[in-house]
Amino acid sequence: MQELNIEVCLSPLLFDTYKNPDAVVVVVDILRATSAICSAFENGARSLIPVATIDEARKYKDKGYTVAAERDGYILDFADFGNSPFNFTRDKVSGKDIVYSTTNGTMTIELAKNSKNILIGSFLNFSAIYRHLLGCESDILILCAGWKGKVNIEDTFFAGALAHQLVKSGRYKTDCDPAKIAIDIWLAGKDDKMGYIEKAAQRSRLRNKGLDDCIAFCLEADSSQIIPCVKDGVLRVLD
Amino acid sequence: MQELNIEVCLSPLLFDTYKNPDAVVVVVDILRATSAICSAFENGARSLIPVATIDEARKYKDKGYTVAAERDGYILDFADFGNSPFNFTRDKVSGKDIVYSTTNGTMTIELAKNSKNILIGSFLNFSAIYRHLLGCESDILILCAGWKGKVNIEDTFFAGALAHQLVKSGRYKTDCDPAKIAIDIWLAGKDDKMGYIEKAAQRSRLRNKGLDDCIAFCLEADSSQIIPCVKDGVLRVLD
Repeated sequence: MQELNIEVCLSPLLFDTYKNPDAVVVVVDILRATSAICSAFENGARSLIPVATIDEARKYKDKGYTVAAERDGYILDFADFGNSPFNFTRDKVSGKDIVYSTTNGTMTIELAKNSKNILIGSFLNFSAIYRHLLGCESDILILCAGWKGKVNIEDTFFAGALAHQLVKSGRYKTDCDPAKIAIDIWLAGKDDKMGYIEKAAQRSRLRNKGLDDCIAFCLEADSSQIIPCVKDGVLRVLD
Repeated sequence: MQELNIEVCLSPLLFDTYKNPDAVVVVVDILRATSAICSAFENGARSLIPVATIDEARKYKDKGYTVAAERDGYILDFADFGNSPFNFTRDKVSGKDIVYSTTNGTMTIELAKNSKNILIGSFLNFSAIYRHLLGCESDILILCAGWKGKVNIEDTFFAGALAHQLVKSGRYKTDCDPAKIAIDIWLAGKDDKMGYIEKAAQRSRLRNKGLDDCIAFCLEADSSQIIPCVKDGVLRVLD
């Protein structure tokens, strides 16, 4: 078998420097968008329609859609709920198409839209996505959402966890510096994930807004076996 | 004393997300531009004129200047020499104004040109720049040149070394995720710098081109006490 390559992109602003159109893209925004997306599908959502702007989200609301939308952690006034994975409960999302807009996550999904395959990764579906990627005959690009263009700790940490496991499998190699940086960040923090994520600026932001109840949940591996993917611009469960 | 802040920018493409015009900017491209710049001044160069494009470099050559210029490690055909710190020998540079253009380093300097103070950092002048920064009443932005817009290991590693020492001093704090990532990369590799830099893609590039003779030199701390700075677009020794 051919050895495949993993790359890690630490910020959406660096996406254009990665030039492998055949790579499977794994979008990562673990605090909180991609964890929330995994929760939504775990609780039976039919689809999530990611929209990048507040205006678009409002138009959908006017048409009668359920809308989950936040900026900087605050729920938009017209939205039904925000971006905590705990918001996407079965009674609110089961069987529905939910419109979804967040500070960093949905814009990152939008950015990757021309890629052949786009998957959504978080610790919630870590092993599921790992096993799926092992079976892919594709290079992988792990695309971190970061924070307003900046590199962040939590997405780098997750990217490192996934890259490390894939390299350990022997099926993948990496010659990408950011992937190696991410792996070392994972190795530095893996024995105390909650303690390590204490360093992250997003940890403080969520604490200051009283939104940090979900962090342990977002760091716990394998509560879901579902892999969300993007098809024709809409998030669905991978067949 | 007021506690000052350190930030680290891991790629020139992310520079615009840092919005502190008062910060001292430390430009870092340790393999090899900022190490070469330190060597040039250590060997008596009067100034280095950084130019971003090959065309500009050629025009200076036509006017009779000594030109150091490379792209991807290769010396430009019209240049006098390239970007190894070993090229900037006393007989070639002492007392001269040298025109200088490299793949990543000079473009990064150009990017920072509107900053109030721009310094050049490398392991060669590590303690000198550390002591200077301790005396500054300014926030600090360590700006990594990276590789063609991508984050690289060696500049992240150096940024971590400098940020770590400054935070340890108690004079500086950081709430910047990339600074904390850089510090952990430094801590992961500091006990075997040569071994750690083996991972870097630039390490392989230089090896493949037979240009890796300077790596140990570039990683060795404190062979110079000189701090290069940028004044009116030109590199000089800080007064």
